[in-house]
Amino acid sequence: MSDGDEDWVLSADMLRDYQDPGTPPGTLRPAEGESGPSRIIVTSYGADDSSVQETSDPASLDRLGDDGRVHWIHVIGLADVKVIEQLGASFLLHPLALEDVMTLGQRPKAEDYEDSLFAIFQYLSVTATRLRKTQIALFLGKDFVITFQPGGPDLLAPVRERIVKGRGRLRTKGACYLAYAVVDLVIDSTFPALEELGKELDDVEDAILENPDREDVERLQAVRRELLLLRQVLWAQREVVGRLAREEHDLMPDDVRIYYRDCYDHAVQAMEVSENFREMASGLLDIYLSSLSHRLNEVMRVLTIISTVFMPLSFLAGVYGMNFDTRHPLNMPELGWRYGYVSFWVVAIGMVSVMLWQFRRRGWI
Amino acid sequence: MSDGDEDWVLSADMLRDYQDPGTPPGTLRPAEGESGPSRIIVTSYGADDSSVQETSDPASLDRLGDDGRVHWIHVIGLADVKVIEQLGASFLLHPLALEDVMTLGQRPKAEDYEDSLFAIFQYLSVTATRLRKTQIALFLGKDFVITFQPGGPDLLAPVRERIVKGRGRLRTKGACYLAYAVVDLVIDSTFPALEELGKELDDVEDAILENPDREDVERLQAVRRELLLLRQVLWAQREVVGRLAREEHDLMPDDVRIYYRDCYDHAVQAMEVSENFREMASGLLDIYLSSLSHRLNEVMRVLTIISTVFMPLSFLAGVYGMNFDTRHPLNMPELGWRYGYVSFWVVAIGMVSVMLWQFRRRGWI
Amino acid sequence: MSDGDEDWVLSADMLRDYQDPGTPPGTLRPAEGESGPSRIIVTSYGADDSSVQETSDPASLDRLGDDGRVHWIHVIGLADVKVIEQLGASFLLHPLALEDVMTLGQRPKAEDYEDSLFAIFQYLSVTATRLRKTQIALFLGKDFVITFQPGGPDLLAPVRERIVKGRGRLRTKGACYLAYAVVDLVIDSTFPALEELGKELDDVEDAILENPDREDVERLQAVRRELLLLRQVLWAQREVVGRLAREEHDLMPDDVRIYYRDCYDHAVQAMEVSENFREMASGLLDIYLSSLSHRLNEVMRVLTIISTVFMPLSFLAGVYGMNFDTRHPLNMPELGWRYGYVSFWVVAIGMVSVMLWQFRRRGWI
Amino acid sequence: MSDGDEDWVLSADMLRDYQDPGTPPGTLRPAEGESGPSRIIVTSYGADDSSVQETSDPASLDRLGDDGRVHWIHVIGLADVKVIEQLGASFLLHPLALEDVMTLGQRPKAEDYEDSLFAIFQYLSVTATRLRKTQIALFLGKDFVITFQPGGPDLLAPVRERIVKGRGRLRTKGACYLAYAVVDLVIDSTFPALEELGKELDDVEDAILENPDREDVERLQAVRRELLLLRQVLWAQREVVGRLAREEHDLMPDDVRIYYRDCYDHAVQAMEVSENFREMASGLLDIYLSSLSHRLNEVMRVLTIISTVFMPLSFLAGVYGMNFDTRHPLNMPELGWRYGYVSFWVVAIGMVSVMLWQFRRRGWI
Amino acid sequence: MSDGDEDWVLSADMLRDYQDPGTPPGTLRPAEGESGPSRIIVTSYGADDSSVQETSDPASLDRLGDDGRVHWIHVIGLADVKVIEQLGASFLLHPLALEDVMTLGQRPKAEDYEDSLFAIFQYLSVTATRLRKTQIALFLGKDFVITFQPGGPDLLAPVRERIVKGRGRLRTKGACYLAYAVVDLVIDSTFPALEELGKELDDVEDAILENPDREDVERLQAVRRELLLLRQVLWAQREVVGRLAREEHDLMPDDVRIYYRDCYDHAVQAMEVSENFREMASGLLDIYLSSLSHRLNEVMRVLTIISTVFMPLSFLAGVYGMNFDTRHPLNMPELGWRYGYVSFWVVAIGMVSVMLWQFRRRGWI
Repeated sequence: MSDGDEDWVLSADMLRDYQDPGTPPGTLRPAEGESGPSRIIVTSYGADDSSVQETSDPASLDRLGDDGRVHWIHVIGLADVKVIEQLGASFLLHPLALEDVMTLGQRPKAEDYEDSLFAIFQYLSVTATRLRKTQIALFLGKDFVITFQPGGPDLLAPVRERIVKGRGRLRTKGACYLAYAVVDLVIDSTFPALEELGKELDDVEDAILENPDREDVERLQAVRRELLLLRQVLWAQREVVGRLAREEHDLMPDDVRIYYRDCYDHAVQAMEVSENFREMASGLLDIYLSSLSHRLNEVMRVLTIISTVFMPLSFLAGVYGMNFDTRHPLNMPELGWRYGYVSFWVVAIGMVSVMLWQFRRRGWI
Repeated sequence: MSDGDEDWVLSADMLRDYQDPGTPPGTLRPAEGESGPSRIIVTSYGADDSSVQETSDPASLDRLGDDGRVHWIHVIGLADVKVIEQLGASFLLHPLALEDVMTLGQRPKAEDYEDSLFAIFQYLSVTATRLRKTQIALFLGKDFVITFQPGGPDLLAPVRERIVKGRGRLRTKGACYLAYAVVDLVIDSTFPALEELGKELDDVEDAILENPDREDVERLQAVRRELLLLRQVLWAQREVVGRLAREEHDLMPDDVRIYYRDCYDHAVQAMEVSENFREMASGLLDIYLSSLSHRLNEVMRVLTIISTVFMPLSFLAGVYGMNFDTRHPLNMPELGWRYGYVSFWVVAIGMVSVMLWQFRRRGWI
Repeated sequence: MSDGDEDWVLSADMLRDYQDPGTPPGTLRPAEGESGPSRIIVTSYGADDSSVQETSDPASLDRLGDDGRVHWIHVIGLADVKVIEQLGASFLLHPLALEDVMTLGQRPKAEDYEDSLFAIFQYLSVTATRLRKTQIALFLGKDFVITFQPGGPDLLAPVRERIVKGRGRLRTKGACYLAYAVVDLVIDSTFPALEELGKELDDVEDAILENPDREDVERLQAVRRELLLLRQVLWAQREVVGRLAREEHDLMPDDVRIYYRDCYDHAVQAMEVSENFREMASGLLDIYLSSLSHRLNEVMRVLTIISTVFMPLSFLAGVYGMNFDTRHPLNMPELGWRYGYVSFWVVAIGMVSVMLWQFRRRGWI
Repeated sequence: MSDGDEDWVLSADMLRDYQDPGTPPGTLRPAEGESGPSRIIVTSYGADDSSVQETSDPASLDRLGDDGRVHWIHVIGLADVKVIEQLGASFLLHPLALEDVMTLGQRPKAEDYEDSLFAIFQYLSVTATRLRKTQIALFLGKDFVITFQPGGPDLLAPVRERIVKGRGRLRTKGACYLAYAVVDLVIDSTFPALEELGKELDDVEDAILENPDREDVERLQAVRRELLLLRQVLWAQREVVGRLAREEHDLMPDDVRIYYRDCYDHAVQAMEVSENFREMASGLLDIYLSSLSHRLNEVMRVLTIISTVFMPLSFLAGVYGMNFDTRHPLNMPELGWRYGYVSFWVVAIGMVSVMLWQFRRRGWI
Repeated sequence: MSDGDEDWVLSADMLRDYQDPGTPPGTLRPAEGESGPSRIIVTSYGADDSSVQETSDPASLDRLGDDGRVHWIHVIGLADVKVIEQLGASFLLHPLALEDVMTLGQRPKAEDYEDSLFAIFQYLSVTATRLRKTQIALFLGKDFVITFQPGGPDLLAPVRERIVKGRGRLRTKGACYLAYAVVDLVIDSTFPALEELGKELDDVEDAILENPDREDVERLQAVRRELLLLRQVLWAQREVVGRLAREEHDLMPDDVRIYYRDCYDHAVQAMEVSENFREMASGLLDIYLSSLSHRLNEVMRVLTIISTVFMPLSFLAGVYGMNFDTRHPLNMPELGWRYGYVSFWVVAIGMVSVMLWQFRRRGWI
């Protein structure tokens, strides 16, 4: 998906990775394109201390107890169905939610289960003007947060770093604030992505204003498609964060809700920017088309001027190239005139002058 | 409808099969295009066992009792008014609902009758880029589900198979969950259909980017029309599933409602994808038009260059083809020059060079 | 309005027949375009019998008593202000409502007066692709229904026929169900009208795909205008039926409300179809424009090919038509060559071949 | 604004006459473009009698007492700040409302002050296809109505006439009904204005269908701009009347509210018509563009046919005008043939025939 | 940003100045582009007196007491993090709000903290057709208002002047009214900005109607982009003022709320005007494109007329320039006619006449 020369496959980008109709809900299977074992990074912290450990055995997580500390389990890699199932069993996660975790390309959403909140987001990045979505799934419980991402570099490392370094309010405000930190990171990932697309739009605009070319339209169309994809994610994401910021929930104390409201503002802003980009892109297409139209006018004007000047002249030359028998006095007496040829040029230059004057009067030249 | 060469009949696709104005409501008549007897497949199951039997006599269904088991009656073929009427009488189905069952091409909808829920969906499939809707009607009662489809292969077979094989939660969660399984199957039928249309869009895009042709626009227009039809269905379907997932109802326990919510998410996603496809299709039209415009520019540039180069040259040749009487010294003395012809070529080549340089300066060649 | 050659008068179609600003409300005057006496058809029925009588004297209607039967008074022709006034006085109809009855081209609406419901609908028909609206006004009281239509054939005859023949539930369900039967008839009149417009769209599409012509755009534009008019009616009508189906009202028992819900579904469907037609019409315009653009390309290609081939050839021929004095050896020695003429043709044919090869390479021929 | 040749000043039409940012609210200054003293027309009436008097001294109005009669004070001319201030003091009008009265070009709005209702409307008229807004401000109290309009003919005269002549219900229904009469008059002023714009649209359409010209587009664009302005007013006006018709208020008895509902229907209808006009205007632009495109096709076809026919012929004539030395037998032997010239014409006419046949086959002629 | 020749950087204008994803919320850093110390202007007033003092040491502000007077602290310059932090500590401002204060380019918003209201607005100005946003942040407490703006001239000076001069109600109505005065000033800054853009639109329109040029489209596109940016601000601003005018809040007495309602009306009006400008801008693009199309038609008509007239004539002249051997009587006997040359001209002039007549008949000349 990151190769520029690769063929664009619309349906693959737009359609999520769906299961065959008729599959029982809650059926787990390895996520599309994932392989290898999962990494499990467990971060536990209280106000005063924190610990990070990495494991690949979910069984060890059962021992995470009701010790008043917050536990954050981050799973990287979604190929290992057993790990996911065991986590689900330990923390009483709903099978439908687990199915969503394993199905990449999901629409961002939030579900409210009995004693946990479940949400799906898309971490956005742009490589070579192609938008890349990385699905982040999140469970929030009373004293734990569980997050999932597909295999690759750990996207949530900055949050863990803040915990370890004890920066900000992270250590003192409980699991809900931790969840906010994750959501905030993911929402804010939109801005660099938007910046990339904005730069590409700027480039295309410069190219179109400079010298509109067919290739520019294709680049423009590519950006428009990415913006379509982006909008789909941003709308849903805005809605999800809006719900978290608005709805009353036991797991969401009021002083943390304020942070979600801030995050909601960012989501709205991202959406507005993407809408503006879409409008600008369609404005660029207008410019491109009007440039083509303008250039055609210019070309046709040149052609018409040339034709209008030289067709009558050629006709005139053709006339005096005729072979009428000049022995009859009425047949082309001009040919025998002393100043015939000179007169021809005088007439020709006069005609051209009149035409050029006409063209100038009409603003054609 | 599956033939590519068949004439498209808009009104037939867009307009449902309506009855003459003034017909009393609840009047049953064989569904449009249906014939032959109906197949009735009765599936009864409890947590531990299941039985499937097929009959063509609805009278036998009266014996389905209040035995705590769930009964699913699936009717295939909508030509036999008597069967439908008898079912309606046995299960106290509302005549308006029965009329809707028999009228194909209905808008998806859900109606809430006293002790049953009634819903209509459209099972979607795409054959040769034409969208085909197959109407599925569903009644949900306390311990029964009755479904109807037009004649043809049994579309709901995967659900029955899951019952028989005892896969998933189907056997343990009552009639409402069975209804969910049916709705889920129908909603998920959208994704393969969307995939087909997406592939066609990809093809058209490749064709347009390669070498835009008139035929491509017609293909594009065909896809757009299918997307229009699709959208009409998807909007309504989303609304229907949304109501089922949201509204309180005796027949809908809370733990099943969660599944409808999941199904609603799928419906929303399908709708978003179809909207994106629509936008992409209109983007492709823009590309097509700008390609034509671009090509016209290119063609006209060639014409203008050729004309601009050869018209003055032809005029020059025409001049020296004139027959002025060269006995007068002012008449075309060039003709008598020793290097006249050579000079002609020098001038001609000089003019062409100047013009080509001009064209290059303007970026025309 | 049914003449194809008549001039289209937009404002007349779009604007209802309004009264001068400042006219006191409730002022009755004969409806625009109506003349002659009104026909009054009185249908009275109970569960077991029915009677129909026609009168032109509204005074006789005072005797319609509180006999438990339902009375339906249908007035055809809206020129006779006295009849309307007398009816209004007998049945306590609000003057504003009566003014609406007499003002044709009204927006469909429903008003809830103290002990009656008042509604206005538009019966739709299409003649020669022109939409014709016929205004049906309806008052619903406890045991009476009063309807009004402009002069012409009795549009509500099918309902009366069902009463007389005792078909359906009409005789047993009271005045509210009778009103439903009327509303249903009017709403369902949309479908044949839509079918006509759909056929015209199909025709225009065939014409445009076959051989796009200027006249096709005018036909298309005519359909678009009718669809605009239609939409205006359908939106309002949908809203009106929706209110009847949704709002609690003493005159509207719950078991009849279900029928209005069904009617509402039809109104929604009609509206969706008309929206789809509108989108298709604008898609057809796109096709038309792209066809013109395509044809222009084709024409220009032919012109460019012809010019590119023949301009150099003509120049060449012009060169050897020059009259340089061949006594100087450098002046056009080719003319004296033994194979000069043959060489000319060889060069000419060679040039043409190169050009044709170039054209083929660029995909122009 | 009524001169057709005057330059259109967009910003002046669209932007209301705003005060400098930072001006304290409630600052009164003479309304833009107003001068001279104000006329004050006081109409007092009870069920049985009415009196009209004109004054220019607001002090005399203090004597209008609590005599059970309705008092209507109509102020014409908004240059005299003192009059307005004195009225405000006598009737306890809010300073913000008074500022709005003096600021022309306001958005229609309704404000609910403690014991009065305040509303602003725009009386619409069309002169020479330019829309003219005249601001009508209205205060409704328990037994008085105060209205303001800029200097000029008395726009509300028809209402006063109805009071004096005792026509309709005006004299018996109190101040609220009087306010309704004013609002109704203003709302209904939209229809003649719409009719004017509709006629202009019809004219433009006829012109475009007849012979599309550049001037037509400018006329069309002028109408579109007026429709934009109109829409802005109509949306707000609809909203204002809707609020009056819907919201409970002490000053608004239920039997008068029904009249406001009727007025609301008119406002909705006006808005729908203006929306339809907008769509029609943009449809006309489509027609204009497609006409241009069509005409270009036609012109280019003629050019291509002419070129295609005559370029080869001219080449042929050019060939036989060459001066190859015919003493060599291979050099242009055709020139010496007995039937050479005849053959030339035969070939020429044959070529033309083939081409014309080709053109006809392609549908070009 | 105020230089006309500077390159437009879309992303910079559209995207606010965002922090890196993962930054802890509430992290303060100097605002983008700000430097130098902050100016702090403290205005204290009661009904009878007022004092203004300027300081750069926020510590002195702690002494502002509970003396019943209103204190307004206006901070100019956002580079000095310490000043902001100290203010936050003194007045118990929320860290998230302070972060928003320091992040320029924020979306206008209002937040409701426990005992203060926080709002962000954008003061708008237009320089050389470029929109410039200056962020104004505002905290409203029981008896204080704190406002922040980036470095530069004091934008809120007019409000301070009104306090000092004792004009209007400012001194008597408490902190909430002061906040209103600030909001009103900022909202009203939109109108001069809109006026500037409106003038530019007028200019572009004149240019396009006069002589459409490529440069005009670029100017038009620039205005459209500014309108996009403007709309984003205006929508949010309208929403913010609407919330202030609507929602109940301890800090907002009812008699002040009325002023916010007035301010809301202005915000709505500004938004409507900007929407109308957007529509007008896209109408201008239509005009431009149709002008180009029209001009192309005109040019092509000239070309076609010239070609159609002179190609046949040239062919004719070419024919009589052929060198068929006139010793054969059938070879070009016309050349030997006495009136051959005269006949040629008669035929030529006749052909031209017929063609011109044809062109006139088709309305081409």
